[in-house]
Amino acid sequence: MYFKALRPLDEMCMQQTRNRIDQLVKPQGSLGKLEEIAIQLAGIYGTNTPHINNKAVIVMCADHGVCEENVASAPQVVTWIQSLNIAKGVSGVGALSKMCAATVYTVDIGIATDEVSPLLYHQKIAKGSNNIAMGPSMTYEQAIKAIETGINMVKKAIDEGHNVIATGEMGIGNTTPSTAILCALTKMSPQTLVGVGANFPVEKLSHKADVIQRALNANPITTEDPIEILSKLGGYDIAGMTGIILGGLVHGVPIILDGYISSVAALIATRINPQVKDYIFPSHASEEKSAALASELLGLKPFIHLNMRLGEGSGAVLAFNVLESACTMVNNMITFEEAGIGVV
Amino acid sequence: MYFKALRPLDEMCMQQTRNRIDQLVKPQGSLGKLEEIAIQLAGIYGTNTPHINNKAVIVMCADHGVCEENVASAPQVVTWIQSLNIAKGVSGVGALSKMCAATVYTVDIGIATDEVSPLLYHQKIAKGSNNIAMGPSMTYEQAIKAIETGINMVKKAIDEGHNVIATGEMGIGNTTPSTAILCALTKMSPQTLVGVGANFPVEKLSHKADVIQRALNANPITTEDPIEILSKLGGYDIAGMTGIILGGLVHGVPIILDGYISSVAALIATRINPQVKDYIFPSHASEEKSAALASELLGLKPFIHLNMRLGEGSGAVLAFNVLESACTMVNNMITFEEAGIGVV
Repeated sequence: MYFKALRPLDEMCMQQTRNRIDQLVKPQGSLGKLEEIAIQLAGIYGTNTPHINNKAVIVMCADHGVCEENVASAPQVVTWIQSLNIAKGVSGVGALSKMCAATVYTVDIGIATDEVSPLLYHQKIAKGSNNIAMGPSMTYEQAIKAIETGINMVKKAIDEGHNVIATGEMGIGNTTPSTAILCALTKMSPQTLVGVGANFPVEKLSHKADVIQRALNANPITTEDPIEILSKLGGYDIAGMTGIILGGLVHGVPIILDGYISSVAALIATRINPQVKDYIFPSHASEEKSAALASELLGLKPFIHLNMRLGEGSGAVLAFNVLESACTMVNNMITFEEAGIGVV
Repeated sequence: MYFKALRPLDEMCMQQTRNRIDQLVKPQGSLGKLEEIAIQLAGIYGTNTPHINNKAVIVMCADHGVCEENVASAPQVVTWIQSLNIAKGVSGVGALSKMCAATVYTVDIGIATDEVSPLLYHQKIAKGSNNIAMGPSMTYEQAIKAIETGINMVKKAIDEGHNVIATGEMGIGNTTPSTAILCALTKMSPQTLVGVGANFPVEKLSHKADVIQRALNANPITTEDPIEILSKLGGYDIAGMTGIILGGLVHGVPIILDGYISSVAALIATRINPQVKDYIFPSHASEEKSAALASELLGLKPFIHLNMRLGEGSGAVLAFNVLESACTMVNNMITFEEAGIGVV
């Protein structure tokens, strides 16, 4: 199965890019992580002149049965409404994507509605996941199908001319399944990891933690297979994002994570195939309580610190500028030799 | 003197912008600092639809007499050569500015050369500052002239259609006078504050600290006037940046700081007129040792964390994207009411 595909980074291109960066007209190492990012992009693209050509953000939209337990401050219908606003370019990620000329693929992978819209990519697997406090959110097969949907959307975006993908999601209630997954992965308690998501009242956080604990009790994890955790405790948006992230490795494009939900999806993806790590980039440091832990477990340090916690992919699209800057450094700065001076 | 000019932010526009942001289709507060930035820009521009129209970076280039004391790893001639590379768009800030369509104003405010170039703005006050280890780097009048040069360059950039200015500098050896200023402002010791600048060898740092201590001894500060500190311990690039930063207040445009040198210049500028703080924005968190202290003293938290330490304005130009994103949020997202749903 392609989850096992091997696609090592191009070491020769990485070395050539590293050598060129060390000769550019600047103190060695002085562009910090921009240098590391450029080298990683060179390895992914297999070129020592990496370019971000066309940007895309894929936004996985789905509903969560666990909303029955009153774990979200917004009503479930907002998932559908906001999906349309994202596609129209008037939500957070919608507006920011327009600004940076990124194509938005808004995917209905599991919204609890029968409505359709020409603005969305309808890939609905079910009308919302089941309530994880009562049992598995999805079947194993549904989780696989959601992952494949993510991988296929990456392929579609590439076929349509894009070579860098940001991850996004819209799913009222989705910090609850995300935290349930993080608890299952880390064996830490819901009380420790639970956060306010989209302005959930602090005084009700212990209720949210209780619901997550009930989900963990209702869904004993019996194998080491990360897809078991994903299928029992996740949701279609999270599983779809896991697919996008795997899609970076499968199809050879850089994937930019957003905040908490995408980092949890990335933890599942890297457990499915550790090589995924070579293809992912962090973006912003989300304000959600356990986002920092999720990033740390991935070994990633987000480089944009704006105290954001909107989701949708709104932080991920801000990072396009950073990846483009890294490419510009390699392609547009000259070396000391080209400048006619010795290395200083 | 216009250093005392009063230009309060437009409170009504700020309040209107705050109200609109709170009604946008997102959880309240979820775009974090983007919201604060948008509100500050609304106050500066006096509009509740703030737009970044045209971007400029002003790069102040000057040499430092203290290089005689072997406090820099690069030879002084690099200041002149790099000034040309900046103007040509092939240095760090040059390449990144081209990428984001920012105009670069490269100013020879004190390079130690008789050469001229049509690529530069020649505003030379002297061919390098004097060696601060031996006495004052400039006269008081020269410092004032450098500040005025900065303010005038901001005016020029505005007259040429720009409405946001990033600060940059090129001056081999300029972390030494910057640290001398920071020592004078904080009464902290050179040994505590000295950093490696552009790859100065760690094993020679105590020599650099000694030179800074000699500069402090040779230049007793006798008044509370920040321009005394600037003129005795600074340099033309730092004083020119102080002028750019004051120019934001004087001419009503946002000024984006870069790293260490610009933060020290901003500390002088805010002591000349505290209202300057309303007009400045941080950008990246520089790797230079005392950059974090300088930001903290300014009350600013840089939002880009890429471990950069190049200078030139290379970090400041990365922040254009953040300010543009803040404007896009206000101007392109819709409210819950516009979306036909209640606030959630």
